Amino acid sequence: MAVVALLALAVAGVLVREVLAAGQGTERMQNIARAVQQGASAYLARQFRTLAVFVILIPFLLYLLPAESTAVAIGRSAFFVVGALFSALTGFIGMWLAVRGNVRVAAAARETGEKVAMRIAFRTGGVAGMITVGLGLLGAAIVVIAYGGDAPAVLEGFGFGAALLAMFMRVGGGIFTKAADVGADLVGKVEQGIPEDDPRNAATIADNVGDNVGDCAGMAADLFESYAVMLVASLILGKVAFGTEGLVFPLIVPMIGVITAIIGIFTTAPRSGDRSGMAAINRGFFISAVISAILVGVAAFLYLPSSFAGLTGVSPEIAAVTTDPRLIAIGAVLIGLVLASAIQILTGYFTETNRRPVKDIGESARTGPATVILSGISVGLESAVYSALIIGAAVYGAFLLGFGNVTIALFAVALAGTGLLTTVGVIVSMDTFGPVSDNAQGIAEMSGDVDGEGAQVLTSLDAVGNTTKAITKGIAIATAVLAATALFGAFRTAIETQLAGATQGVKDALGSFGTFSLSVDSPNVLVGLVIGAAVVFMFSGLAIMAVGRAAGRVVFEVREQFRTKPGIMEGTELPDYGRVVDICTRDSLRELATPGLLAVLTPIAVGFALGYAPLGAFLAGAIACGTLMAVFLANSGGAWDNAKKLVEDGHHGGKGSSAHEATVIGDTVGDPFKDTAGPAINPLLKVMNLVALLIAPAVVAYADNVALRIGVTVVAAGIVVAAVIVSKRRSASISPTEENNVKREREPISS
Amino acid sequence: MAVVALLALAVAGVLVREVLAAGQGTERMQNIARAVQQGASAYLARQFRTLAVFVILIPFLLYLLPAESTAVAIGRSAFFVVGALFSALTGFIGMWLAVRGNVRVAAAARETGEKVAMRIAFRTGGVAGMITVGLGLLGAAIVVIAYGGDAPAVLEGFGFGAALLAMFMRVGGGIFTKAADVGADLVGKVEQGIPEDDPRNAATIADNVGDNVGDCAGMAADLFESYAVMLVASLILGKVAFGTEGLVFPLIVPMIGVITAIIGIFTTAPRSGDRSGMAAINRGFFISAVISAILVGVAAFLYLPSSFAGLTGVSPEIAAVTTDPRLIAIGAVLIGLVLASAIQILTGYFTETNRRPVKDIGESARTGPATVILSGISVGLESAVYSALIIGAAVYGAFLLGFGNVTIALFAVALAGTGLLTTVGVIVSMDTFGPVSDNAQGIAEMSGDVDGEGAQVLTSLDAVGNTTKAITKGIAIATAVLAATALFGAFRTAIETQLAGATQGVKDALGSFGTFSLSVDSPNVLVGLVIGAAVVFMFSGLAIMAVGRAAGRVVFEVREQFRTKPGIMEGTELPDYGRVVDICTRDSLRELATPGLLAVLTPIAVGFALGYAPLGAFLAGAIACGTLMAVFLANSGGAWDNAKKLVEDGHHGGKGSSAHEATVIGDTVGDPFKDTAGPAINPLLKVMNLVALLIAPAVVAYADNVALRIGVTVVAAGIVVAAVIVSKRRSASISPTEENNVKREREPISS
Repeated sequence: MAVVALLALAVAGVLVREVLAAGQGTERMQNIARAVQQGASAYLARQFRTLAVFVILIPFLLYLLPAESTAVAIGRSAFFVVGALFSALTGFIGMWLAVRGNVRVAAAARETGEKVAMRIAFRTGGVAGMITVGLGLLGAAIVVIAYGGDAPAVLEGFGFGAALLAMFMRVGGGIFTKAADVGADLVGKVEQGIPEDDPRNAATIADNVGDNVGDCAGMAADLFESYAVMLVASLILGKVAFGTEGLVFPLIVPMIGVITAIIGIFTTAPRSGDRSGMAAINRGFFISAVISAILVGVAAFLYLPSSFAGLTGVSPEIAAVTTDPRLIAIGAVLIGLVLASAIQILTGYFTETNRRPVKDIGESARTGPATVILSGISVGLESAVYSALIIGAAVYGAFLLGFGNVTIALFAVALAGTGLLTTVGVIVSMDTFGPVSDNAQGIAEMSGDVDGEGAQVLTSLDAVGNTTKAITKGIAIATAVLAATALFGAFRTAIETQLAGATQGVKDALGSFGTFSLSVDSPNVLVGLVIGAAVVFMFSGLAIMAVGRAAGRVVFEVREQFRTKPGIMEGTELPDYGRVVDICTRDSLRELATPGLLAVLTPIAVGFALGYAPLGAFLAGAIACGTLMAVFLANSGGAWDNAKKLVEDGHHGGKGSSAHEATVIGDTVGDPFKDTAGPAINPLLKVMNLVALLIAPAVVAYADNVALRIGVTVVAAGIVVAAVIVSKRRSASISPTEENNVKREREPISS
Repeated sequence: MAVVALLALAVAGVLVREVLAAGQGTERMQNIARAVQQGASAYLARQFRTLAVFVILIPFLLYLLPAESTAVAIGRSAFFVVGALFSALTGFIGMWLAVRGNVRVAAAARETGEKVAMRIAFRTGGVAGMITVGLGLLGAAIVVIAYGGDAPAVLEGFGFGAALLAMFMRVGGGIFTKAADVGADLVGKVEQGIPEDDPRNAATIADNVGDNVGDCAGMAADLFESYAVMLVASLILGKVAFGTEGLVFPLIVPMIGVITAIIGIFTTAPRSGDRSGMAAINRGFFISAVISAILVGVAAFLYLPSSFAGLTGVSPEIAAVTTDPRLIAIGAVLIGLVLASAIQILTGYFTETNRRPVKDIGESARTGPATVILSGISVGLESAVYSALIIGAAVYGAFLLGFGNVTIALFAVALAGTGLLTTVGVIVSMDTFGPVSDNAQGIAEMSGDVDGEGAQVLTSLDAVGNTTKAITKGIAIATAVLAATALFGAFRTAIETQLAGATQGVKDALGSFGTFSLSVDSPNVLVGLVIGAAVVFMFSGLAIMAVGRAAGRVVFEVREQFRTKPGIMEGTELPDYGRVVDICTRDSLRELATPGLLAVLTPIAVGFALGYAPLGAFLAGAIACGTLMAVFLANSGGAWDNAKKLVEDGHHGGKGSSAHEATVIGDTVGDPFKDTAGPAINPLLKVMNLVALLIAPAVVAYADNVALRIGVTVVAAGIVVAAVIVSKRRSASISPTEENNVKREREPISS
């Protein structure tokens, strides 16, 4: 296993050399790229310093939680750090290369044309993909080899570290990128009427930096985390279903994923017959999916027993299931692969410019911005329902593979997730492709050195990138649902183990919940469910508000620069790009604390205040509401973005028309939806799940210790409330100077 | 009981006479009022005709469902019709008087000043309040007297009839009112720059009609339904907890509510020291709440036993609870009253113009419409969380009153709901106050006959009405959560009864669900939960889209009239108001089918396809997500509305500034949020709950009949899918003529 993991990393190394060997274009392009590189590295460095406090503090807290043995407790804490570091590393390397790939893509478009440009962009993404799967598999392999049967408990720490860091990177990067983007658009496009990526706009460099720290680093860390948590879930359940033997197959499937991802990445190259770059990417995706399916079938027959009977270390109920486990496993992985394809198709339908929903939004631009917003919201709400139903169908299909046994059903759910993630290498490559080509276009535009056919190539690559980004988000949220569902099995096992050895005091305190039940007809469980759903709303609201606040400060800064340096507009003076990058860096790091604390501390408060059953329902509520909200935010944002492109392509009056203005407003609303709040829900769900799983034994063990329960609840809830209050205060903290600037500049805002 | 119910109706009669006796103002005002009256009556008549098919069809289907006896089956069907008729009647009478009260309020403002105007407005509302409580109590009393111990089963039919009709009236009225309002604003305020309620706008009469059919008729029917369903829940649970004796107290509480509502309505009169009309209304509300609390305490000691032991017909578990039932009952009702007050305060905070959230939205108008939308959405998301937490705290408080016994806990939840609804008389009065004063202002503005101090009075009454409307929505959704939670007890009882007598085939088919469990760790149950949450998203999306579509047609019609009758703008020609009323009527009735079918048929499809446990979780998911979504939609809409008022009051540039334009866009987006989708979620939740409750025995009984299950699922899901597809088609049905009009008139839309 470790060999395959190292193979993936080696392939990444090869790809890095290939990308770096490409030409870097003109002096001006290199200067711009260097500014983006510096901004991105500076941000990431500060972010890691900020997050270091968590990476140092949490292992100690984790160590205090009940564990099977001291070795496991130490391993859990240690691998929390490893998970966090791997997550950070994935994000860092992906981004490090992306800020170098972008200028090379632009140069290739200028000098050698579409094929080479696309290959560089996709291979830059391929590095991130290989690092993700390589490090994920490496971490899991080390834990399994070192801890054997105890691996699942240690892996909880690994998964938690990965998920927590990914969530912070998602939120922080998401706020950065959209504060810069929204701020740049509000002053540039809306107020001054200058194009996107115009070098006169002081926020453009920050915008390009944002694409990298948000879409590249954030997304890579996020998918690394999905990968890690899914492995954790399938290994935990594999052990329950098959005993120690069950630890092998869940690792074989992602190994297959690594191999097919390598094939997928190297086969992705545009052919002469393709209508768009998307065709090449789809081909790579489907080729790797089909190869995965075949290899998984072979692996199941090699590595799984032909019946559950005769396995050592499994419950009699499982041993009694007569269906062939190999068929169950193959069926589950296939469900995962079909799910990935279905989401790809559905997301495409709701966000591509030539399909009905986006066309309808474009149509509604004729009656102004309000109808654009309304139709985008209803399209998003609807698409969320279909995605949720598809994901639900996959979960239900996997459930049916359990043939009445819940443990096997959950293992099937986990395998479906693993199947979904065999495509993750290609998915990350696809996604990183997005910001790289976006940036390449930005650099080309700012430098003014790429025109004619080269500019055309970059525009079409950018459009392809938009679609791949939307698809990745859909797949990421599907993994969250599958992982969270599968982890319910682990949650149940943790609670039941603890209940079996409970003291009389604990049994009395639990009353009718002395035997495991998360039955939602009990009012307290229902309350837990409502709180879980509420956290998703709160988290989304906080993230959107944070972007609004940070973007406001960017707007004031850019306006101030236009005002104090009149030469900027005439092109005789350079704006101070660095100040906007600084503002975005400072604000996004300040703003990520509140949503982060919310994710970590609410499960703790709910668990200790209300008990384990409301905590379980809390997770269920968060999953149900989170799935819908994540897809809603991602797809309405994506649809608005493309409705704007539709109008820019000349429909309903084209650029400069009132319809265009309306869709620009829609796009601006959609920015924090699709790139901040929406994608951060995915790691949010996993962080909450893992926190719940980790504290589950303690919640039961201290059920009769009212003082401790109140103490923990008060501290956890108190910190969340304090953080929310502090972040509210901040919204009024626009300084008097800024206030004055605004008053002085009260020109009409709309064009 | 029936006597108190008739007393309420008699008081309503007295109030009607008082209102009708007031002066009607000038000829012009009366003409306008007559147009509104005709439009409203015509709409309601057509709506009732459309809905008649349901009222005729459903009783037959209901009769086919399993029941304890034929008498109960017949009663259930018969009282379904009664419930539907009462619901319709409440809406009709409330609206009938509202369209007569409006002109009298305007006349009073013109002739006699604020005090009299406010009294007429509030007493017009008082009629709706009295009818609601009177008919609700009357229906329940008749059923209890006629059916004794079988009353709960029959009441399910009564509640279902009331809820279904209310849902249709909410959705239909909501689409009508906002199609007219949004359409009027888009052409009038945004395109032509003429004020709201300007007689030159062809959509103004339709807008005024809409206020009545949506906010008056829809809201009255909705609160009647809340009242009826809450009574149903508490009677069902009262019987389980106390045997037949338990049927008395749940009826005593609303009787007290009738009496205190009468007191509340008659004590609501402005005093000289009041800062605003809101003070008088708050006084009336709190006086009636305090009197209710005291009387409930007295009634508990008179009508409840001092212990559970010794009761006949209750389970040994309940008999073993040693806490005094009278204290539990008083505690529960107090929780309901406190909840009502807490929601009143919280909603006020998030939607009043002088509080932080609305001020922040106003502030964000300085950076354009996009930031207005974003800040409104984040305010709404956040306020939903606090409301959900408050409601959750109330449910949890009631749960604690069960002292470990789930049945008593659920009864306490139901009593908390009943307590909440003791204030319903005043609440409905408060709410109807909103559209009446809104209309009064509209009539005054259109006629041009009220100015100076009179106009001032009407503006301030309108602002008060905005706040009362927001509060009512918060309270309505709280009743939905409490009723739905309480009905879980009835759902459980229905399932357990059926499970006890299940055949071996059914037991085999149910497997581990052979004993009642809605435990969400099982993947199929979790899938049910996700679908439940998804229905809320779908319903909201459909409702918003329906408004968008209908408003689009209003826009084209009004533009067409401006184009073909140039005299309208100069005031020499009258627009054809009737055509817009017709468009709204036709469209809203056409659009209400899809969301309606969704509500009724999805629980059937989920129940028969997936089983009773996913069905139970489906309800839980809908409750959790529905609560949040309803409050989110209501409060962000309310906050945008008042942010607009804030700017109109001269902040951030005042009327005509770019900030004003931005808030007008926010308000337009908020319109279908707060008046169509948001408030309709309340009856949606109850309809789904009651459908689930009614089909629960059949779902278990036919668990092993796969053919029947597939058949029912295919039919139910097929109809929903077909309805959704038809409504999608419609969005493209803007005729070529209209298309051409638009092209011809492609002037810039934004001012």
